[in-house]
Amino acid sequence: MRTIEWDDSDSSVKMIDQTLLPGELKFIKCKNVAEICEAIQNLRVRGAPALGVCGALGVALAARTSSANTVEGMMKDIKAAGEAIKKTRPTAINLSWGVDEIIQIVEVEGMDTRLIQNISLDEAKKMANEDIAINKKLGKNGAKLLEDGDVVLTHCNAGRLACVDWGTALGVIRSAVSSGAKIRVIACETRPLNQGSRLTAWELQQDKIPVHVITDSAAGFLMSEGVINKVIVGADRITQEFVYNKIGTYSLSVLAKEHGIPFYVAAPISTLDPESWEEHIKIEERSHDEIRYLGKAKEQNVPEGVPILNLAFDKTPMENVSAIITENGIYHPPILIDEIILG
Amino acid sequence: MRTIEWDDSDSSVKMIDQTLLPGELKFIKCKNVAEICEAIQNLRVRGAPALGVCGALGVALAARTSSANTVEGMMKDIKAAGEAIKKTRPTAINLSWGVDEIIQIVEVEGMDTRLIQNISLDEAKKMANEDIAINKKLGKNGAKLLEDGDVVLTHCNAGRLACVDWGTALGVIRSAVSSGAKIRVIACETRPLNQGSRLTAWELQQDKIPVHVITDSAAGFLMSEGVINKVIVGADRITQEFVYNKIGTYSLSVLAKEHGIPFYVAAPISTLDPESWEEHIKIEERSHDEIRYLGKAKEQNVPEGVPILNLAFDKTPMENVSAIITENGIYHPPILIDEIILG
Repeated sequence: MRTIEWDDSDSSVKMIDQTLLPGELKFIKCKNVAEICEAIQNLRVRGAPALGVCGALGVALAARTSSANTVEGMMKDIKAAGEAIKKTRPTAINLSWGVDEIIQIVEVEGMDTRLIQNISLDEAKKMANEDIAINKKLGKNGAKLLEDGDVVLTHCNAGRLACVDWGTALGVIRSAVSSGAKIRVIACETRPLNQGSRLTAWELQQDKIPVHVITDSAAGFLMSEGVINKVIVGADRITQEFVYNKIGTYSLSVLAKEHGIPFYVAAPISTLDPESWEEHIKIEERSHDEIRYLGKAKEQNVPEGVPILNLAFDKTPMENVSAIITENGIYHPPILIDEIILG
Repeated sequence: MRTIEWDDSDSSVKMIDQTLLPGELKFIKCKNVAEICEAIQNLRVRGAPALGVCGALGVALAARTSSANTVEGMMKDIKAAGEAIKKTRPTAINLSWGVDEIIQIVEVEGMDTRLIQNISLDEAKKMANEDIAINKKLGKNGAKLLEDGDVVLTHCNAGRLACVDWGTALGVIRSAVSSGAKIRVIACETRPLNQGSRLTAWELQQDKIPVHVITDSAAGFLMSEGVINKVIVGADRITQEFVYNKIGTYSLSVLAKEHGIPFYVAAPISTLDPESWEEHIKIEERSHDEIRYLGKAKEQNVPEGVPILNLAFDKTPMENVSAIITENGIYHPPILIDEIILG
């Protein structure tokens, strides 16, 4: 079961609607770019690696649904689609990476419209397969950092549901468990959209990996009580200086440092962004309604009229990171992004 | 408008049902001890000082509703009621303090059943009035620590709704605002029962004190960005070594220390517990359902079968506290509880 894939039967992008979990496991199909954008915007699909593949499949879908009969016309449609897709989530780099990868390839190799359609789809499918291979490799690398008996805290969902399959942070845990280690996981709820309690808990339960859910604010106390001995999170973008990830990651890094607990970041090379500096990266602020109302029933959680700050991401300075785990290996401080890319 | 008070018209304990806020402001009436216990257990009334007064009024209600016609019989009823009330919330000391205060007085002065009824009620009413006077004094003391332009983070609700009126942490802010300082407040949502977003935001909005709501996990990042320059919280119990308060308080203290931000605790003397040591204090673990389901609609937030850890409180070591604010004054490190009590 893949989180996201191309469906040849009706030329659609098929994905798990993650907003319905854990209550319901349902697949939806996006048949055009607008539906892809809606799915990303509303977090039906989310997670940096999954967004990369979704961006790529979105470009393939744009080629497939384009009515242009010239190369120029189709490239124009594809690029407009790519821009629309990239705008839906500004912080995760993988989304724009996925879009740009496919556009670059078809720009070179797309001699006619049929070829653009075939190449974009083939390459997007290849990217999806590679995502799994990369995660397995990353997981195998990271598993060396875990030991039998570890209690590992994770935040948000950097698992199978954040990728095509296997996962990054949870991929490391899966790899360790596969090789026989007994690992227990503590999943932070991850307000306001509860990807930890809804998604991480769900997918670990499916795999029979022991998991406890806590509120985000309980992590520090459990560290001080000696309950947690490692932290692993994913990443949405890694620059020379900072790891951008779900809001709350930075707090966990400070708390881990205070308690002498290793703080690991697991992410594929496609998450690295050696070119960007702090001032160029937009931290997505999402709708206040995500906090003002609780759940689908929209129960009042914050009074009308009271302002809300809903930052989706924060940034953790590299000095708080004990290691970055990628498909190329494990990188300890001093962590130099250029070196990781060179492998 | 008091959060909790005795209603002479029908001899009941009248209180705001805080579980309905911010959607609805509704008063409920408890006419017997079982209803008092239910209201405390389900957090219709909560907050350390309000629980103290609720415990006292509960004892008065027990005397009023007792069918005993001997002093011994009535004292037995009162003590049984006191034990039942105290058991509802084990961590906050004020609840047992409020119960025990009244029982001690009637034990000495309650010569007949009528007198027990009258004295317990008079003393409980006096305690309610004193709670307001104490908070005003505490607020005035603490206001000296705040400056015009401060952005103050607070956690949970240590406001009017946690007391009879005015508040402890929010009382300090109210006192500073009353004396002309412009203070902006950032309220942590405070999972899982959202006392920050539901109650703190509501009561500050009523008073037109500017407040923003954030998720609990956003506090660290906002500190690192220089947005927050002070933290004030209340307390449920203060021992020689630790401040026991809502889960998440400890994390905030570590984050404040990391960023060089003062971390203040505002609490009346009745919260101090110089006799107890760590191993004697039970940290209340509340129902998993508070995290497993979202809101009154009970939307699935954690899959069935996945275990949850729902600790209601944590403990912050005294070395993380910049000052304790009480009605007796402000106490800076080294903080010695016995000295605070002596004033």
